[in-house]
Amino acid sequence: MERTFPALLARMQELRDLQGIIGLATWDQETYLPAKATGARAHQLSTLQGLHHERLVDPRLGEVLAWAAAQPELDADQRAMVRVLTQERDRAVRVPQALVKALAEAQSRALVAWRQARKEKRFALFQPALARILALRREQADAYGHEGERYDALLEGYEPGMRVARLTPVLTALRDALIPMVAALAAAPRQVPELLQGRSFDAQAQWAFTLRLLEAMGFDLEAGRQDRSIHPFTGSTHPMDVRLTTRIDEANLLSALFSTIHEAGHGLYEQGFEEAHYRTPIAAAPSMGLHESQSRLWENVVGRSRAFWEHFFPALSAAFPQALAGVDVEGFHGVVNRVSRSLIRTEADEVTYNLHIVLRYELELLLIDDELPLEEVPAAWNERMRRYLGVTPPDDTLGVLQDIHWAWGEFGYFPTYTLGNLYSASLYRAAERALPELPGLLRRGELLPLRDWLRTHVHRQGYRLPAEELIRQVTGGGLTDTDFLQYLRGKYGALYGISL
Amino acid sequence: MERTFPALLARMQELRDLQGIIGLATWDQETYLPAKATGARAHQLSTLQGLHHERLVDPRLGEVLAWAAAQPELDADQRAMVRVLTQERDRAVRVPQALVKALAEAQSRALVAWRQARKEKRFALFQPALARILALRREQADAYGHEGERYDALLEGYEPGMRVARLTPVLTALRDALIPMVAALAAAPRQVPELLQGRSFDAQAQWAFTLRLLEAMGFDLEAGRQDRSIHPFTGSTHPMDVRLTTRIDEANLLSALFSTIHEAGHGLYEQGFEEAHYRTPIAAAPSMGLHESQSRLWENVVGRSRAFWEHFFPALSAAFPQALAGVDVEGFHGVVNRVSRSLIRTEADEVTYNLHIVLRYELELLLIDDELPLEEVPAAWNERMRRYLGVTPPDDTLGVLQDIHWAWGEFGYFPTYTLGNLYSASLYRAAERALPELPGLLRRGELLPLRDWLRTHVHRQGYRLPAEELIRQVTGGGLTDTDFLQYLRGKYGALYGISL
Repeated sequence: MERTFPALLARMQELRDLQGIIGLATWDQETYLPAKATGARAHQLSTLQGLHHERLVDPRLGEVLAWAAAQPELDADQRAMVRVLTQERDRAVRVPQALVKALAEAQSRALVAWRQARKEKRFALFQPALARILALRREQADAYGHEGERYDALLEGYEPGMRVARLTPVLTALRDALIPMVAALAAAPRQVPELLQGRSFDAQAQWAFTLRLLEAMGFDLEAGRQDRSIHPFTGSTHPMDVRLTTRIDEANLLSALFSTIHEAGHGLYEQGFEEAHYRTPIAAAPSMGLHESQSRLWENVVGRSRAFWEHFFPALSAAFPQALAGVDVEGFHGVVNRVSRSLIRTEADEVTYNLHIVLRYELELLLIDDELPLEEVPAAWNERMRRYLGVTPPDDTLGVLQDIHWAWGEFGYFPTYTLGNLYSASLYRAAERALPELPGLLRRGELLPLRDWLRTHVHRQGYRLPAEELIRQVTGGGLTDTDFLQYLRGKYGALYGISL
Repeated sequence: MERTFPALLARMQELRDLQGIIGLATWDQETYLPAKATGARAHQLSTLQGLHHERLVDPRLGEVLAWAAAQPELDADQRAMVRVLTQERDRAVRVPQALVKALAEAQSRALVAWRQARKEKRFALFQPALARILALRREQADAYGHEGERYDALLEGYEPGMRVARLTPVLTALRDALIPMVAALAAAPRQVPELLQGRSFDAQAQWAFTLRLLEAMGFDLEAGRQDRSIHPFTGSTHPMDVRLTTRIDEANLLSALFSTIHEAGHGLYEQGFEEAHYRTPIAAAPSMGLHESQSRLWENVVGRSRAFWEHFFPALSAAFPQALAGVDVEGFHGVVNRVSRSLIRTEADEVTYNLHIVLRYELELLLIDDELPLEEVPAAWNERMRRYLGVTPPDDTLGVLQDIHWAWGEFGYFPTYTLGNLYSASLYRAAERALPELPGLLRRGELLPLRDWLRTHVHRQGYRLPAEELIRQVTGGGLTDTDFLQYLRGKYGALYGISL
């Protein structure tokens, strides 16, 4: 391998093409893969991931990256490419192959155990597999290296640059502000009625409406697709090939609408990278939290706003004249923003959602530091549910077993959801300052100016800067709960007729 | 790389997984790829093919293959795996990387030139690109090595083991038998009317009927799929993941019906490999001709038979009650077997089809041996069209420019179509001997006994033997035109009321 930037770029492109193909094979697995081919696909994905790993840890790549890092004539983008790939490679190199293999095996077993435990509603059946996953993840964190805080080494895999010391005070303050807010909303004299239950919404009309939303948001369907899957997700093969999925449920109109808007938020990010960065390590979001800020901004801040539905509700109503009979825009806006103290994170509203996350974050810190005996996890979960949300899971399946993340070994992932919410509020505030006419634009269904502002200030930046630095550059401030809490207080105070 | 069979098998599986993923990415390119992603996909495919090539020519693989070839304790299947992969590797090793690259570039340019030449209906515009392709393919043939017959080295890439010395006498005899047969059919007093022109067939009903055909043929839709594409094809990611496409044209019912039956013939082959061979080099057809024998057997010998439509025509008629008004099974059987002296190979009937192929084969032999000046190719084409089929192309687009194969550089490919036809007739005769009740089964729409016979005697064999040896094992005889000519004489003599 030559010590030249073009030779390095060729290797970057090869790695990126492999990632793109892994993205395609994964998308296919969730959409069109024949039922009997799941084993075959697992082999193929494992082969591709093995090749990607082998090329990434190749010592010759390490040498050329070290050489490139010392070349002063590289431009800023080239230096960013070298920095990002070096970070990724360094992490991959530090984990011994035996540990990678042990983790993959432990994960397979944990998934089986988790499914069985959910079926029997008994955390105890999942506990041994979880113990194994945790032991290996601790070992991995130590292999990555950290400055005393093991969780930092795992968090780095999802939110590079973020640290427990920075995150915990923000999440604790957020928790302490949300607990009384949730209680106040539950006790508010004006409550928001659930108007849509028992109605049925034609699947084809739902599909057509989601395409209309994609078009309005400026998601380019010639550089991407929408398909159906059980769990909606955004897969990216390339910025010109961004694949969203949505879920259509005839009994639940909101599922398709908000899945599409959420995934299109991710999709616009992927479509928005600079062409000059394609097939390089910086055609990427700097963190999961920043990626999630885009989906949450569109889904919640825009897609659950009164202004948005003032434009779209008449069309929605016309698409479902019978199913939406008797529902007006005010009622609909209420339904999509109902706050309820519920058990399941993925069904939670904007106000309670982050309490579900803080609970998981607190338990993860204890688990990674081995400070909570595993047999006490369900009780710790339920006790926090009572304290934060005022509800108690009737069984483990509706409690500690509800998420797949721990079976996957994904410790450090949950907080990125809340980072997404916090960043989305701060970014939207910055957009409002830059585009004073934004409320009027939304009210007319004109979403492209907002998309273009995000494209310029967030998407096109790619991975030039770490997430919080980019946020600071765009909003003038770093990670904060101030904008998010202000947003909640304004919106939900008005909706529930109380002062928050 | 260890000198053990398990280590070799792991490398075989890796190579096979990469091929499967290349199959998936190619299928996706023809079905669901967003319009703007064609460039991105070309990069990704090129990266995958480069990795596959690199792993295949790896000298360590060569050493372990040489070691394995000398191990007497390997079983017959393992020896076949070693032999097939060694052949594939030897061919890949012999072609210098510079030539591989030059061929890829020449092919890209030739495709552009071919499209332009077709548009302007002028072969001269394609001629320089064709000259370059031919020069490189000659160089490649010499790199592969041959015993004086250059074309053999190219034919080997599609039909391993076949040689010009074996093929030419068979094709020449076939040609000399077909020319008078075509003339006799054209002059027959009873002609077959074209009943379907000007009718329109609902696309959804066509789709539903193709699924019914797939089910009847025993194509497993849990181990495969059917989708739509402009040019129907069969892609295989794995024997458990076989993807057919069909083409629906509301003005042409026959397009979807026979595309589906044809591709399902290929698909049954891919689904029929032995599980113990999955992810090895012998879960494969031994040649393109043998693969084509399966599609042609189902499409023509079965799918255009009177017995087949006696069962399926009532259902077809019920699916298109208005569009098929006034057509009965006899009329329909006639329409799907009309013989006409036409210009375009892909639209040709069973009788004239192989004359189109022999014409191409004869020109290819001259071109590879540089015995036909390129400026004379259109005249040589047209002269043979007159001689063999009694028609003259009015322009080059309807003549020498009609097929994409030469722009792809695929010299040696065309004869495999005729090998498919010849093998299909011989295999069907063998099936009739083994299953005396076959005509009755077809008449009742019971296709599974035939599928199972083919599965046992052809599909499950994989690539244990070269194509002609397998044919000899199954039919008792090797490559011959006897069975095919006998089949044509019987069927078309009856249909046109003459003695052939």
